[in-house]
Amino acid sequence: MYNNGSIADVETDDVESEVGESMYSRPLLIKRSNTTSQIAIVGANVCPVESLDYENPENDLVNEDLRLRKIQVFQYVLLKWAFALIIGLSTGLVGIFSNIAVENIAGFKLLLTREFMQKHEYYKAFIVYAGCNLGLAASAAALCAFIAPSAAGSGIPEVKAYLNGVDAYSILAPSTLFVKIFGSIFGVSAGFVVGKEGPMVHTGSCIASLIGQGGSRKYGLTWRWLRYFKNDRDRRDLITCGAAAGVAAAFRAPVGGVLFALEEAASWWRSALLWRTFFTTAVVAIVLRGFIQLCSSGNCGLFGEGGLIMYDISAAKVVYSAPDILAVMLLGVIGGLLGSLYNYLVDKVLRTYSIINEKGAAVKILLVITISLLTSICSYGLPWLAACIPCPDKVSTSCPNTDVSGNYKSFQCPPGHYNDLASLFLNTNDDAIRNLLSTDTAKEFYISSLLIFFGAVYFLGIITYGIAIPSGLFIPVILAGSCYGRLIGRLFEPVSKLDVGLFSLLGAASFLGGTMRMTVSLCVILLELTNDLLVLPLVMLVLLISKTMGDMFNKGVYDQIVKIKGLPYMEAHPEHYMKNLVARDVVTGPLISFCGVERVGNIVHALRNTGHNGFPVVDEPPFSDAPELCGLVLRSHLLVLLKGKIFSRDRVLARNKILHKIAELDFAKGKGLNVEDLDIKEEEMDMHVDLHPIANTSPYAVVETMSLAKAAILFREVGLRHMVVIPKSQGRSPVVGILTRHDFMPEHILGLYPHIRYRK
Amino acid sequence: MYNNGSIADVETDDVESEVGESMYSRPLLIKRSNTTSQIAIVGANVCPVESLDYENPENDLVNEDLRLRKIQVFQYVLLKWAFALIIGLSTGLVGIFSNIAVENIAGFKLLLTREFMQKHEYYKAFIVYAGCNLGLAASAAALCAFIAPSAAGSGIPEVKAYLNGVDAYSILAPSTLFVKIFGSIFGVSAGFVVGKEGPMVHTGSCIASLIGQGGSRKYGLTWRWLRYFKNDRDRRDLITCGAAAGVAAAFRAPVGGVLFALEEAASWWRSALLWRTFFTTAVVAIVLRGFIQLCSSGNCGLFGEGGLIMYDISAAKVVYSAPDILAVMLLGVIGGLLGSLYNYLVDKVLRTYSIINEKGAAVKILLVITISLLTSICSYGLPWLAACIPCPDKVSTSCPNTDVSGNYKSFQCPPGHYNDLASLFLNTNDDAIRNLLSTDTAKEFYISSLLIFFGAVYFLGIITYGIAIPSGLFIPVILAGSCYGRLIGRLFEPVSKLDVGLFSLLGAASFLGGTMRMTVSLCVILLELTNDLLVLPLVMLVLLISKTMGDMFNKGVYDQIVKIKGLPYMEAHPEHYMKNLVARDVVTGPLISFCGVERVGNIVHALRNTGHNGFPVVDEPPFSDAPELCGLVLRSHLLVLLKGKIFSRDRVLARNKILHKIAELDFAKGKGLNVEDLDIKEEEMDMHVDLHPIANTSPYAVVETMSLAKAAILFREVGLRHMVVIPKSQGRSPVVGILTRHDFMPEHILGLYPHIRYRK
Repeated sequence: MYNNGSIADVETDDVESEVGESMYSRPLLIKRSNTTSQIAIVGANVCPVESLDYENPENDLVNEDLRLRKIQVFQYVLLKWAFALIIGLSTGLVGIFSNIAVENIAGFKLLLTREFMQKHEYYKAFIVYAGCNLGLAASAAALCAFIAPSAAGSGIPEVKAYLNGVDAYSILAPSTLFVKIFGSIFGVSAGFVVGKEGPMVHTGSCIASLIGQGGSRKYGLTWRWLRYFKNDRDRRDLITCGAAAGVAAAFRAPVGGVLFALEEAASWWRSALLWRTFFTTAVVAIVLRGFIQLCSSGNCGLFGEGGLIMYDISAAKVVYSAPDILAVMLLGVIGGLLGSLYNYLVDKVLRTYSIINEKGAAVKILLVITISLLTSICSYGLPWLAACIPCPDKVSTSCPNTDVSGNYKSFQCPPGHYNDLASLFLNTNDDAIRNLLSTDTAKEFYISSLLIFFGAVYFLGIITYGIAIPSGLFIPVILAGSCYGRLIGRLFEPVSKLDVGLFSLLGAASFLGGTMRMTVSLCVILLELTNDLLVLPLVMLVLLISKTMGDMFNKGVYDQIVKIKGLPYMEAHPEHYMKNLVARDVVTGPLISFCGVERVGNIVHALRNTGHNGFPVVDEPPFSDAPELCGLVLRSHLLVLLKGKIFSRDRVLARNKILHKIAELDFAKGKGLNVEDLDIKEEEMDMHVDLHPIANTSPYAVVETMSLAKAAILFREVGLRHMVVIPKSQGRSPVVGILTRHDFMPEHILGLYPHIRYRK
Repeated sequence: MYNNGSIADVETDDVESEVGESMYSRPLLIKRSNTTSQIAIVGANVCPVESLDYENPENDLVNEDLRLRKIQVFQYVLLKWAFALIIGLSTGLVGIFSNIAVENIAGFKLLLTREFMQKHEYYKAFIVYAGCNLGLAASAAALCAFIAPSAAGSGIPEVKAYLNGVDAYSILAPSTLFVKIFGSIFGVSAGFVVGKEGPMVHTGSCIASLIGQGGSRKYGLTWRWLRYFKNDRDRRDLITCGAAAGVAAAFRAPVGGVLFALEEAASWWRSALLWRTFFTTAVVAIVLRGFIQLCSSGNCGLFGEGGLIMYDISAAKVVYSAPDILAVMLLGVIGGLLGSLYNYLVDKVLRTYSIINEKGAAVKILLVITISLLTSICSYGLPWLAACIPCPDKVSTSCPNTDVSGNYKSFQCPPGHYNDLASLFLNTNDDAIRNLLSTDTAKEFYISSLLIFFGAVYFLGIITYGIAIPSGLFIPVILAGSCYGRLIGRLFEPVSKLDVGLFSLLGAASFLGGTMRMTVSLCVILLELTNDLLVLPLVMLVLLISKTMGDMFNKGVYDQIVKIKGLPYMEAHPEHYMKNLVARDVVTGPLISFCGVERVGNIVHALRNTGHNGFPVVDEPPFSDAPELCGLVLRSHLLVLLKGKIFSRDRVLARNKILHKIAELDFAKGKGLNVEDLDIKEEEMDMHVDLHPIANTSPYAVVETMSLAKAAILFREVGLRHMVVIPKSQGRSPVVGILTRHDFMPEHILGLYPHIRYRK
């Protein structure tokens, strides 16, 4: 049976009349526009993503395979924990490595620049500074452009989409991992206003994916014993752990990592996962702590000291009254507005860059070089605008400071003076943030300097995201936010008793809330970063206000990027107009289904000529009394079955024969097989193959008159890849169609029904 | 149409042969034992719980009702936030109130006792002490026994079950709220080894429920404008917020509250809820902080000082090396074992008590009095075993201490000496924990005293839970755990550099991990309690170890209690044997379904003679070509429709007539209506009523051959109350049966198929 769209055609003709005639139909009378539907389908096929199936397929073959491999439940659980341990260890080590590398490379660059500065060779100093930046930037860009283009950007949106069920091309490949680590080190060392936090999350996920699939087949690095997790669901769990481990390594925030994975990254969650994720981040925390203790004795070059906490502000007294709270609320409101403006501008810039970047690798690198030069000019040029400030009498550190990091940079100033802008610009981003968050240093930065720095960083952060380097968004936002907070703190100094360091922290919180729109995880990350629980109520207040303000104008920055990248992300809530549609309204033909025992030629033809990944199997007489749905077969399973060549001349069942041969069929390879790999002879094309052993006999199905909103909830909650639509009335073919993720996308639905107004 | 079990009967006869004959049937050949099936059904009906429907019903009437009430999305969202605010405020205030009340009552009692002690009138002191305890205990028990029996115990298991979809009888009623607050105050003041933390969670949930349903109809306190949230789903969200607020108020831990709601309480979760819950707990934190500032100036009687943090141990230096970590790991292992032993013993005691408590209110109160006497004897008698210790030279507080709380109690000792056991026993539980967690007081408690206290508290904690007072489990566990930790700390003193205060904290963590089996939320709660982020890696390590140890032996204590109470809790993972069953295997008859336009008499008869809450509606000619499933009607909607009396002599549609009358039909009342409230005349019994407007036309359905495991996943993930089972082959009645929560319970399935081995 190879009914080329017959069912779908009948369906299309019937829709209008049926909707009109049925007694208690939904109020909206819908006209289908066939032309746009075609366009939408083409568009969907062009999209270079693969959906994932988070509901495990269940068929005789898979069950038998599991039985043969004799995986005990206990082994399985133990393996899961072992994997979590390995992911935690590796991510922790990578985190340590990239931190040490950045500190050393950037430190060396800054020391070299200062040497020339001290000799008053200012032009040479600039050339050295800009040259180093340029070289590092070009290396990062070259890695990105030539080896793994998908390593550019933050990576969090892609991980988020993966955990939602969308596998973007090569997003978790080993090459991406390599470029992400080194590109990020070069990019951050090059002085860009980017962070290594987002890339760290992506790195953690890549590591998890690599380990989960037992190494890389492409590079010949595979371990058979690691390949227990062949299904999407187990890999999803590992990658969730990886993302959490990434945050934990980036911010040294184990609890924050778990919450980030929960709040921002994952689309599904279960209690058991919380528990495993927590274990992973605990391992990361212990690795980090060990290395930091090792490094604090000076074994890691220029790598700075510091405990598990990056910006310790617990020295500041947290006492506040009503005017302080008002000031903080105002800070939250403005921070939220500036945050959503940031999102808006990033969106615009990203759309522009994506056009530029399409023109080839050379153009990509050129763009990176341009931005690098601009950044160098800003960070070296702007400090000249600041006046030299006499060193304060009582400071804990020396002034001007001779460390690589440190609060008081001399720059061009005479001895006993410091340049406050240089203390911010000519530092790594981490140190700049540390300076901004420092407490009991109220007068250190002039308001004018803060204004200049804020403007420069806000602007540079926006134009840097989207160029072809791995670039996190956390640090730019925190940098701009903490500067903004300190600015507000200085302005409110006459009326507020709060330390400007605290204002700085709250400013960072307001910007984070305004752009990323996470609340609980940001709150905990900030707590773990700053080690001050007493400031918690204020941080919560600011986050709530700024998120609310931001939500009025646009979506969170990661959601925006997912949208720009065209990834078919399933939202948690169905769109309002879906209530007025039913499942069959979005079924688009032609439907291709197979018989229980099907001609090999038909299957090969279907696999070659469509991109479908799931096909319904319909049993017909003599195998059943009337045509009935037997199950759903997956492309990958079909390919393995055809590769195994258990064909017969007649239409007969061959369950036992197939189950017997199962040991030779490696189902893990299914995903790597292509229809071109099949070597089927002409005479075999007319033979038959029994599909029953590979049919998932329990596919999730909805009746065609099910409200589309309810179907979407089922699809999303259970984590499906295919959903079978079955007819309501009897006497028709037992399958109306198959819904996939693309069929629920607003673009597809609004393409079919353009008159539906899309209001958000 | 009123087919008394016809479909189900056919089904029962067919099952065996069908399973045997179908070509690719599941391997397990199943014999149905009809007798046990009957018993199981009876058992299910006896259960005094109501299931909740977390997937909103959707039908013409509800839609029209929503349209008429003209709730705008914006209003709706605003209202949700307003409710979260109110819940946060009320829970915070109740938390403050109960804290102040406990501190004052218990403080007064302890002061009175000390007065007699100082006069060396030891017997009088005991009589006063035990008398106060007895009076308070009896009051708590009387409240519980006579007004609201469901207020006894922790309440967390019931809230957990509610959020899973099981509404136990009167568990969130206003009377329960009242008894919970005052019973908890009396119970804790009476010196029982119980906490007010669990009851606080229950209190928060009760407040949320009360507000969510717009007050109490029973007590005539209703606000019309509050009644927007008529569906179970919105109430679930509110109650989740309430539970989080409860934890936030109990531990002054806003982030911990959110995580508790997420990890332990809620069965479903979405990002939006995280955000709202967080807001609620932030409100609680702000209320608490405000009142604590007010109280610190001495306006709250004996209410102690202290910031948002209860046990501040941040003074202790956290430096540790390999031997410390080994000691901590050992502590975790033993703590986990003792924790699971605790669970085991609580289970046994609870089963014994439930038999005792069934014998009436008087017996209940007698049990409480017995335990109260035992507690008084222990806490007054055991300190006599301890020797008097000379006061140390350098202490920050006076010794012996004259405060109500405080470290050094003189008890029977001469001036300049203190009794270390009395410092633990003759204090409120909170103060005892504070003493145990105190840092830099390594030598304060003798090992022998710690051993005695540990034994007493461990034992008293176990025998106290289950008596008829509101009793939280957190405090007993923390108390025993911190004592155990301090003991271990004293034993490891020669080899470990860690402060015994930190050991104490880790001991509490190990006990919590071993009994409650939460990880992330406990970790954060402990952090927020103790304000020490540096100890985080150790706390994580201990929690992981102790939870793992505990999980080897039994379930978490709350899961155990849910099971003992017989609440039909849907687990996240289906049981292994469900893979070998299909949906129709657990369908038990008789199925009762209605026609699209049904005789009134049939409906009334069905409502009177069954307890079913959902009925399928099947359209038959002339309303459709062949019998087809039109939808599902709910009992509550049927009752409203019958109350409205829009009947007709003939079988005709009456959609517009019914929708017209909708304004008069109050659907919120549906839940309060009973079939006895209907006043239907004899001649009306033969008239017809159109069920289409109240039929949910998009019920979630599974095909009868769907694996039961997959059906369970759908049921649980989407949050259903009824699941329709539809036939696979054509030409049969369009509904095979309806599955509810009870049909997925192991008891029901194993009743049907007793030969299935139930291995865990």
